Order: sequence, then C-alpha cells, then structure tokens
Amino acid sequence: MTLYQKLATRLREHIQHDFYKSGDKLPSVRQLAQEHGVSISTVQEAYRQLEQEQLVEARPKSGYFVCIPKKDNLPSISRPPQRPLEVSQWEEVLNMLMNRSGNKGVQLQHAMPDMKASTLKPLLKTLSDLTKQKPELGLGYSDVRGSEELRMQLCRLTVASGCQLHPDDIVVTSGCQEALSVCLRAVTEPGDIIAIESPSFYGSMQAIKAANLKAMEIPTHPETGISLEALELALDQWPIKAIFVTPTCNNPMGYNMPEEKKEQLYRLAQSYDIAIIEDDIYGDISYQFPRPKAIKAFDQDGRVLLCSSFSKSIAPGTRVGWIAPGRYRDKVTHIKYVSSSMCPVLPQLAIAKFIRIGGYAKHIRQMRQNYEQQRDHILNAIKIHFPSNTRVSFPVGGFILWVELHPSIDTMKLVERCREEGVNFAPGPLFSATGKYRNCFRLNFSEQNKEKREWAIKRLAAILHDSDTRIEHSAPETSALI
Amino acid sequence: MTLYQKLATRLREHIQHDFYKSGDKLPSVRQLAQEHGVSISTVQEAYRQLEQEQLVEARPKSGYFVCIPKKDNLPSISRPPQRPLEVSQWEEVLNMLMNRSGNKGVQLQHAMPDMKASTLKPLLKTLSDLTKQKPELGLGYSDVRGSEELRMQLCRLTVASGCQLHPDDIVVTSGCQEALSVCLRAVTEPGDIIAIESPSFYGSMQAIKAANLKAMEIPTHPETGISLEALELALDQWPIKAIFVTPTCNNPMGYNMPEEKKEQLYRLAQSYDIAIIEDDIYGDISYQFPRPKAIKAFDQDGRVLLCSSFSKSIAPGTRVGWIAPGRYRDKVTHIKYVSSSMCPVLPQLAIAKFIRIGGYAKHIRQMRQNYEQQRDHILNAIKIHFPSNTRVSFPVGGFILWVELHPSIDTMKLVERCREEGVNFAPGPLFSATGKYRNCFRLNFSEQNKEKREWAIKRLAAILHDSDTRIEHSAPETSALI
Ligand SMILES: Cc1ncc(COP(=O)(O)O)c(C=O)c1O
Ligand SMILES: Cc1ncc(COP(=O)(O)O)c(C=O)c1O
Repeated sequence: MTLYQKLATRLREHIQHDFYKSGDKLPSVRQLAQEHGVSISTVQEAYRQLEQEQLVEARPKSGYFVCIPKKDNLPSISRPPQRPLEVSQWEEVLNMLMNRSGNKGVQLQHAMPDMKASTLKPLLKTLSDLTKQKPELGLGYSDVRGSEELRMQLCRLTVASGCQLHPDDIVVTSGCQEALSVCLRAVTEPGDIIAIESPSFYGSMQAIKAANLKAMEIPTHPETGISLEALELALDQWPIKAIFVTPTCNNPMGYNMPEEKKEQLYRLAQSYDIAIIEDDIYGDISYQFPRPKAIKAFDQDGRVLLCSSFSKSIAPGTRVGWIAPGRYRDKVTHIKYVSSSMCPVLPQLAIAKFIRIGGYAKHIRQMRQNYEQQRDHILNAIKIHFPSNTRVSFPVGGFILWVELHPSIDTMKLVERCREEGVNFAPGPLFSATGKYRNCFRLNFSEQNKEKREWAIKRLAAILHDSDTRIEHSAPETSALI
Repeated sequence: MTLYQKLATRLREHIQHDFYKSGDKLPSVRQLAQEHGVSISTVQEAYRQLEQEQLVEARPKSGYFVCIPKKDNLPSISRPPQRPLEVSQWEEVLNMLMNRSGNKGVQLQHAMPDMKASTLKPLLKTLSDLTKQKPELGLGYSDVRGSEELRMQLCRLTVASGCQLHPDDIVVTSGCQEALSVCLRAVTEPGDIIAIESPSFYGSMQAIKAANLKAMEIPTHPETGISLEALELALDQWPIKAIFVTPTCNNPMGYNMPEEKKEQLYRLAQSYDIAIIEDDIYGDISYQFPRPKAIKAFDQDGRVLLCSSFSKSIAPGTRVGWIAPGRYRDKVTHIKYVSSSMCPVLPQLAIAKFIRIGGYAKHIRQMRQNYEQQRDHILNAIKIHFPSNTRVSFPVGGFILWVELHPSIDTMKLVERCREEGVNFAPGPLFSATGKYRNCFRLNFSEQNKEKREWAIKRLAAILHDSDTRIEHSAPETSALI
C-alpha cells in the first residue's frame, strides 16, 4: 500500500466509525500533512481517492467535508405485471418468520426497532407497576373498541399527522397486522381487487391472499411512492375496490409520498368512489419534524381507513395497534370483534400514560435522530463495500432500506449462503405478489452497534464480490426480473 | 302468615343461604318442633310445603333432605329452521358488548369466570416478576406459532382430554375467538355452509357471518348436544363444509356430549369427509374429574381442529388461546399470521410456568368445586322464585346456564327493563342465527357472592311475575318462537 492509500484507509475508517459524521468538516490538507508526517500532495491524493468514492466532497474555499449520503443511486421505478394477480410467496415469508428466533448472526431481516433506548424506561416502569399493583384491570373482558383512555390519547397524537379524531372514531387492534386484515375484510368481498404499491410489505400482501382478494401491483417510485398515472390507468381498466398504501416512511423503501400527492391520491379515490387503506405504522418516526401529514388528513367523507401500531415507534411485543376506520366503523368493529375479541388492557393503559406524560414524544424524538444517523452510516457502508452498480433507496424515516443489485443476482439463493455466514436479510421476492425483485433485498438499520452492522455489510459485500458465489438466475425466473 | 308458613320460610332461607347444602340431612321433625316451640303437625306441614316446592325430599326411615337439583325441567330440544341461513343479530351482540363496562347492577350476562380466586396468585406473581425483571422478553417479534414453552405445556395439559399432541401441532392465538375465526377461514371458502349447535355462542356465529359463510343450525338436546340424526339428514341434503361444536360444558347450555356420541360425531365427519371445529374452551372446568375426552381424542386423520383458551379457566384478559389444527396446520398458520401476527409473549410464559408448577391444576380443581356449588345455588333460587313453567338447563361444567321461559315472554324486551333495575343477562336471540329463542336467556353463575345473585334472581322473577310487565310478542316475531 502506498502512503496516500494508507492515509485514505485511515480517513475512511474514521468516517465509518463516525469519528467524522456526515456533513462534518475534515482536517485541512496542511494539518493532516503535519499530523501524519507526509507531503501535501500525498494528502491531496488521499482526499482525491475519497472524493472518487463519494465519501468526501471539496467545497470551494472551505475545504473537505464528509459527504451527506445522497440519493443519486436510487432503485429504478418498479414495473410490476399490469394485471390483478393472486399473491404467492407464503412459503418464503414463513421460512423467514420461522428463522426469527433460532437464527444466529446479525439480524438485518426483520423490521424490528431499537428497543434498548433508555427513553422506553418510563413505559416499562408503568407496565410493571400496573401488572403488580392492579392486575385485576388486566383480567376481565373489556371494551371491544379498546381502552377509552388510549383512544383519547390517540386522538391527541394524530393531530400531528393532520387528523381530527374522536375516541369513538378509533378501534384498537392486536398490532397493525390485525388492523390491516380487518380493514381489508371490511371494504371488500372475496374476489375483489386491491391496488397496492410494488414492492409492498409482505404482511399486507399475505392478508390480501387470506381474504381471497387479488393484488394489482402499481409501479412505484422509490422517492415519491405509487405512480398516480399508473394507478389511474389501472382504475380505468379494472374494478378495483380499494387502494392500499404505506405512504409515509414506506416499507420497504423508506420514502415519504409528498403531501400534494397524498391529496391527489385521495381525490383519485374519491372520483372512483373507492376506499383507501393507509398504513401509517412508521409515520411517527419520520426524520422530518413535525411529521408529514397522513392521507387521512385530507379525508372529507370517511373513505380513508388509517391503520397503525406502536410496533415500530415503541416495540412490536406490545401488540397495540389501531384503526381510524372513518365511515366503515361499524363493519370494522364487527370484524375486529370476530377476529380476536378485545385486546389486552394493561399495555393499552401503559401506552396511554406514556403518551400523556410526554414520554412518547421524547422517545420518538430520540429515535428519529438515532435512525437518521444509522441511515447515514449504513448508506456509507454500502457505498464503500458493495459493487458500484448497487442501487439503494434513501429512507427519510424508519429504519429499513431497499437494495437493488445487478439483475444477475438471485437474493433467494444469496439469503441461504449469507445465513450460513451469519448475516440475515429479507429477500426481495417476499415483497412482491409473484416473486419479483429477485435481485433486491431489504435491510434493517435500527441496530446501534455500528461495528456489528459494518461487519455484516462487509460479509455481504464479500459474498457478492466473490465470483464463485455469483448466482445466476435459473431460466424460469428470469422473466420475473424488474 | 300462619305458623307453618313462617317455619317454611325460615327453612327455605337456610337452604338458600347454604346453611343447609344440597343433599344435607335436615333436622328431624321432633327437633324442629322443640326448637321453635311449635307442634309436630306444624313442622310436618312446613316440610310438606317445601316438598311441593321440590326443595326438600323425604327419604323413608331417614328423614328430610335438601334436594339435589335435578334435571327434570330441562329446556326442550331445539327446533331451528331446517336450512342454511345467514347470521344476523350483530346489532344485538354489539349492544351487549358495549354495555360491558358502563353497566351498573349485577352482571349475569357475560361468560366471565371467577377471577378473585387466591389460586390465581402464583400466576399473577409470575407475570408481575417477568414484566419487572425481563421486560425485554416481551418486546420483540417472536414465533408466530407461539412460545415453545407454552406449546410444550399445552401438550401435557391435553393428555387429560385424551389428545396426543406435539408442540409443532399447536398454534397459539389471541384467545379462543381468534382460534375459532382462523379455523373457520382455514377450512372453508366464502359461501360455504357450516353445521352448528342451536343455540350457539354468539361469537362463533358472528365469525361465521364475517367469513361470508352460512349457518346450518342443527336441533340440539339440552343434555347430550347436537342431534346426530338431524345432523346426518342435513349432511345428506346440503354441501356442508364443516361441523362446529362446543361439546364439552357447552355454551350456553352446559351439557357434556357423551363420549360415545363424540366418537360417532367424528365417524360421521369422516364418512362425509368434512372437518370438525371443536371449541373446548370450558372443557377443563367440567365438574367431572378426570375431565371428559375431547372429540379430538378420537381423531385419526387430523380432521379435528381443537380450539381453546384460558379465558374461562383462568381469565379472559390473558388473551391466550390456541389451536391444535391437525392436517390444516399450514393453512391455519398462514391465517393466524395474517390475522394478528404473533401473540404477546409474557402472558404465554407466565401461563406455561403456572401449568408446569402445578398451579393450574390446583386452580381448576378449586374452580370445579366452586362452580358446582354455585350451580346448585342458582338452580335452587330459580326453582324457588321463577314461574313454575320455567325450564332450566343443568350444567355439568362451567358457570353458565340456559333458561327457557313461557313462550309469551320476549327477553329482548325483558333485558331492557331488567337493566334499568340493575340486573343483566344475555337474551336468547343472540344465540341464534336468526333471532330465535326470544323466550330464553343465559345466566352466569361464577359470582361467589350468593346474596347478590339471589337478589338479582328475585328481581328478575318479580319482573317476570308482574303482570303489567309481562311482555307479549309483537306479531312478526311470533314465527321465530321455538
Ligand atoms: C408496513 C407495515 N405494516 C404493518 C406491520 C405489522 O405491524 P404489527 O407488528 O404492529 O402487526 C409491519 C411490520 O413489519 C409493517 O412493516
Ligand atoms: C364457547 C366460547 N368460545 C369462545 C369464546 C371466546 O373466548 P376468548 O375470550 O378466549 O376469545 C367464548 C367466550 O365467551 C365462549 O364462550
């Protein structure tokens, strides 16, 4: 290694380990030359190298700065099949779910938030106190719509997303998964068609399957979400019953649909007189503050069913989700009752208190900052280690991102190989009704341990670079490529 | 009041307040005469009066004894409409659910167990310890089939009902309600017909409605359950997809289907090659020990989907239920995942430990005895206070019973009037797909406070006797009478 390469490696490490963070000013050329006892031109050479890697940038008259990760290598807009299809891929989803517990190694596959934050302590304390001091509150049957205390706090909370709700407009559910399933069943009959983003969260797609519905996947832009033009074409062509979107901090791509576009989407639903199921589960951990408006904020006639839970903003184990079902309230209440009767009360009361005393606001403020930092870190790590033809989404909230590899890579095979080496991710086909996105995968970056994540990204990259393990598509799958 | 009437009243009170219990020997005629300073013939007259009321019986050469409640006034075998029908009555069910919390007075309407028992303490302690000491166990996503620890204990537990299960044969659910809903969806397509007992638990019937199925109600005997003859006729006539029964400590009638009949029912399902969904939620609190076998015990080819929960044997608020889905395991796992993803972990771990250390066995032993005593008490109270044409089911497990009044009584109207006076029950039409059983209702007797219950039974009876409030059917409803 030459002198300048050594210096570049050193600086690269400093950036990766957050010694210098995105946007930070780096030491001047002169300073570095002195510090390391090398010539000015060696330092210049090192900086030029890092510039080429898009890790640092020179600003005229100011010196060198750590690049703020950019969205210059976004995945392409998706091109799913242009007709309603049955959802497959359950085997693949189950396979991943089953590996939840037994799995060794670094877990980048699940959409699991950071649950070690000290800002969660007041919540855990309340839950522990309630369980100890008032266990009887948790024993009986209670309101099938959920605890009124919590529904009141949810009304307060959703002001931030532009909604004006009354406690009677809310139905508490067992997580957002139940919310989505209940809403789907409330607005459709078996055989109906649902328009969805593509790629889409596998849990929603499997719910579409279980409700005997067909999925009409709509081309989706990695920065602004579902294509309204494509959606309108589909609405003209097919008897679509509802639109199902995750427009804020989308899973798996992490984009926010711009607010004007949200309003347009609402108007479109209005003109075709169909419902919108809006999954807002990541909405509260948008990096932007105040958080973006929900589509529900534009709802004038109750056609938007807003779904959410505290699984991403607090922890999935709470299983506290909810629906603001608009005009579908009665049907939603029926299906929720039938689906699992009422929800456990103590977690609801604990979360209600957490919101009331301001603990929730404090917690998500911290999470927002934390996840945004982790995002910069993982984007840099991917840029440094992955093949240069890699495309990556640019999350503006939440803690997951979408990676698009060269079309010759089959992530269903890659996932097995990586699992053996202790790195786990969610392969792309899970996010498609028909097993598309074979060259894509989703990564979680909620983990605060940067060394661990960096090790995993490096391993992944090494397997990708290793030509022996370069996995070619087998013939029948080629057609499913985007 | 004459002397003998006064003495009879006195003795009646003693019996009602359990000073003398069912089967106890009463004081001799001579003894009573001395004690109360009355003549032998006055005591004889009093005893004759109580004999007429079927409260006491004379045994030759032994004296007088408190009657053991008998099943001589059972409701008639039901005669539901002989065709598959859509389920209605949701408004009525919701109305009752909504009154859960706000209601004043004595609550005899919900199938809520006794949750004040000291035998529950070890469970509550474990839950409180876990919540305090290992909150992290409760935070993440976990196995969609439920905690393995619990599934292992469930295998142990179900040996008592004659089942041989492996942890992999079990899927944990959010209560028995989710279990039923998931199983229904797993074995049917929309539009299919399900055969059910009549009357049936409203939660199952509403699940049939929500899954777009039709209910074929089958005549049901108040002592032995669903009529196999009628069922076979229906199976010949209609393309029935599955049989849905609660054969052990049935809700609402409290019968046990005899074990031979359970086996016959299984053979019938086999010969028509259809599935059986068996709701065993009350099975563990059968008064008989060891508890009766489940239909699942006779299952040779995995066509029985056994559903249960700890809602009746422990407390509904735990929301821990489960399915042994037999050959439908993969479909059941899919629908359970879609329905609400995984279940909260800490209650599962706490219950697993409760079973493991023997706390559960101890608790249900106590509950069995307790509920059997309460049953005798409420049956006596009904016998004493209600009109003599009242028919009452004779529960052999659980804590609910079914009352059939004179056909001229409309319990949908009665329930409103009684609510105003602070007595709440579940009116009959909720237990029918089409609003039948208007002259019937269900009562809960888990409450240990006998005075409170006796007061409620007296109030109810008074309203029934009060000719001003005698409620006649309005014309259109008459046809729905049994
Ligand atoms: C977009 C989206 N919706 C819904 C869910 C399900 O959430 P819950 O765990 O609250 O059921 C998830 C979880 O991964 C998700 O990412
Ligand atoms: C026969 C029967 N099945 C199922 C249920 C629902 O049980 P869970 O509360 O466990 O959902 C009940 C509750 O009343 C019931 O009586």
